[in-house]
Amino acid sequence: MALVVQKYGGSSVADASCIKRVAQRIVATKKAGNDVVVIVSAMGDTTDELLDLAEQVSPLPPGRELDMLLTSGERISMALLAMAIANLGHEARSFTGSQAGVITTSSHGNARIIDVTPGRIREALDHGRIAIVAGFQGVSQDTKDITTLGRGGSDTTAVALAASLEADVCEIYTDVDGIFTADPRIVTAARKIPKISYEEMMEMAACGAKILHLRCVEYARRFNLPIHVRSSFSTKEGTWVVSDPYTPNEASEGTEMEQPIISGVAHDRSEAKITVVGVPDKVGEAAHIFKTLADAEINIDMIVQNVSAAATGRTDISFTLPTTDASTALTSLKKIQDKVGFESLLFDDQIGKVSLIGAGMRSHPGVTATFFAALADAGVNIEMISTSEIRISVIVEQEGVDAAVAAAHRAFDLDADQVEAVVYGGSGR
Amino acid sequence: MALVVQKYGGSSVADASCIKRVAQRIVATKKAGNDVVVIVSAMGDTTDELLDLAEQVSPLPPGRELDMLLTSGERISMALLAMAIANLGHEARSFTGSQAGVITTSSHGNARIIDVTPGRIREALDHGRIAIVAGFQGVSQDTKDITTLGRGGSDTTAVALAASLEADVCEIYTDVDGIFTADPRIVTAARKIPKISYEEMMEMAACGAKILHLRCVEYARRFNLPIHVRSSFSTKEGTWVVSDPYTPNEASEGTEMEQPIISGVAHDRSEAKITVVGVPDKVGEAAHIFKTLADAEINIDMIVQNVSAAATGRTDISFTLPTTDASTALTSLKKIQDKVGFESLLFDDQIGKVSLIGAGMRSHPGVTATFFAALADAGVNIEMISTSEIRISVIVEQEGVDAAVAAAHRAFDLDADQVEAVVYGGSGR
Repeated sequence: MALVVQKYGGSSVADASCIKRVAQRIVATKKAGNDVVVIVSAMGDTTDELLDLAEQVSPLPPGRELDMLLTSGERISMALLAMAIANLGHEARSFTGSQAGVITTSSHGNARIIDVTPGRIREALDHGRIAIVAGFQGVSQDTKDITTLGRGGSDTTAVALAASLEADVCEIYTDVDGIFTADPRIVTAARKIPKISYEEMMEMAACGAKILHLRCVEYARRFNLPIHVRSSFSTKEGTWVVSDPYTPNEASEGTEMEQPIISGVAHDRSEAKITVVGVPDKVGEAAHIFKTLADAEINIDMIVQNVSAAATGRTDISFTLPTTDASTALTSLKKIQDKVGFESLLFDDQIGKVSLIGAGMRSHPGVTATFFAALADAGVNIEMISTSEIRISVIVEQEGVDAAVAAAHRAFDLDADQVEAVVYGGSGR
Repeated sequence: MALVVQKYGGSSVADASCIKRVAQRIVATKKAGNDVVVIVSAMGDTTDELLDLAEQVSPLPPGRELDMLLTSGERISMALLAMAIANLGHEARSFTGSQAGVITTSSHGNARIIDVTPGRIREALDHGRIAIVAGFQGVSQDTKDITTLGRGGSDTTAVALAASLEADVCEIYTDVDGIFTADPRIVTAARKIPKISYEEMMEMAACGAKILHLRCVEYARRFNLPIHVRSSFSTKEGTWVVSDPYTPNEASEGTEMEQPIISGVAHDRSEAKITVVGVPDKVGEAAHIFKTLADAEINIDMIVQNVSAAATGRTDISFTLPTTDASTALTSLKKIQDKVGFESLLFDDQIGKVSLIGAGMRSHPGVTATFFAALADAGVNIEMISTSEIRISVIVEQEGVDAAVAAAHRAFDLDADQVEAVVYGGSGR
């Protein structure tokens, strides 16, 4: 008997018939002899509808009250899911984040989990019940107010609860079959990745793969908790995120494949580029610029500083950031223009980031060369470059993203062929 | 400075603009120098929508989960109201029933308040904040599960919280101007009652006046808490429900009027009549019948037993009950037909109850005679009669209800005249 934690997102519980289907899946897991804890998001568009209501009464609602409002969304979905399970003849109990012992900081809208004290969940399991827990929410340790966890919150709830319960696996249900070597909408030959390491998954998440949030993968890695990303619309195995995907283990059948050089190609169109033109090449000027941006709580991704032109004693600094933060960043920078003495600001939101991710590149020289050659052959110009030990990212113009992703995917032999399709369809991993 | 508890029902917070108007009203009360605690119901049709969702996933949802679901309704309205108040520059904090310390039995869907421990509400008031509390909900003392209070739950929350906070008044906001001498839709000359005693109000509520629930008036009487029923659409004084409405007090202006014989005429079309025909006239048969109904949790209102016909040794027993309970009652009775040996069951849902209520009738003989004469003149036949010290109720055929109410209202001089209309419009009471 295993303890299985399952997380279902908003699209999996979008309406009554979806909820009933999810209930059947949960009951099947229970009937197979497992203890089951389910984390659930708010139904479909509920959160957007609640945000719309909030906007109608206040342009800038207090965070505490916004959290109180939004947490009603999971309250609805979890209660309905518990009812649907009861209707199948199994006992289920729903719990709010607070009841489930999800203790957080008091940073409304973006709280961090401090501790999980799942006494009531354990008690429910001890009574043979299925526990349904509201994702995305917790209770502040200091103020006892209701909090929400922000982006990726429900996945993080699932992983945190699974870790504290020492679950055997945390299954993240989504509307695709798992993590793919590239976005299948761009690369039709993209393959599902059967196993991937936490580190690679974190790089994928940070580089635009939307399936899992960076934060929940970090949490899982810390507790060495296996995550299984799979579709709520099929019973196929999805993608396992584990510490060492390339070591054969007893649970798997047959031989493991060799570690690929590149696990996948991620892309991200949500960033923009700002260039600070003509920054005086003096000590501390760059620091001043980035301190200003940090104070405005803007997350910078990539940074490039041109070699200073000796004639002018000035340099250009370019950086990328989420497009949604761009106007705040530009406003903040304009305020320090006179003090820093830069000449002007350039803004470009027509960019995209393409990233190669693979633990295999550690032991394979020439990855960068192959990547850049593939992009050149595809006629895509590289504007900025950033690397880590298991990742290479480039900024290209946005309309070149698709071609760049496809070219890289092909260049590193990631395209599916007939043999691999059979392996992935039938391996049972 | 007074402590004012205000309760707003679902129609007062039906949408964003309603919520903003209510927020202004609350802020005005605060600005007038009062501490303010607000109890709020779910927005408009929210509860019905949630019930509809529940029905879609399960025909018989577990009570615990139904309560979890329904309580999301007040969570939404209270958070939005707190936001709207914040938008007017005042600090507000919303609290669930559990956070407000509303401790109940664990009877889901119909929990009773055991205790109120409003520590967090007091703390909010001490910080100069307006406290917004979810009506209709609490937390079970035994199981720590979320409960709902059933019918009249939000009014009861308001009165219970007001009592525990030793508030100066509990204002119940509704969509009419107060309690009327009769339903103004039936009697256009009906007058608003400026003050009424708890006992009369309880009889009115029990006899079909929908504005205040019996349960909340009982609670207020126990703690001698003044209730002020008034419209959320105007600033006019409504109806005060107090222990002794006819004693002049320092707060009132001018002289109090003399106690009227009759305070009001209530009516109720929601009951049905069942007649058990041919019950053997033996000791214990009636007890058996009503024990069976009690076991089925059916609330009986009026009972009439015919004088037994000596020839047959059999009698008929008629009783009234909520029409919604009728099919359960009929099924339960059919099961004991052979055992009790009655002949048949008659069912009539085309009845109505008309009640005269007034503490003044204690000292005025002849009220019954005047009432019955008025009905006779109006051509309305009386089917059943029930009386208390301050109430006379009769069952009539449903299509005679309007005529009976109008006739009684006129017979006891309750119809408004010009002079009174001026008094009520301008007295400020």
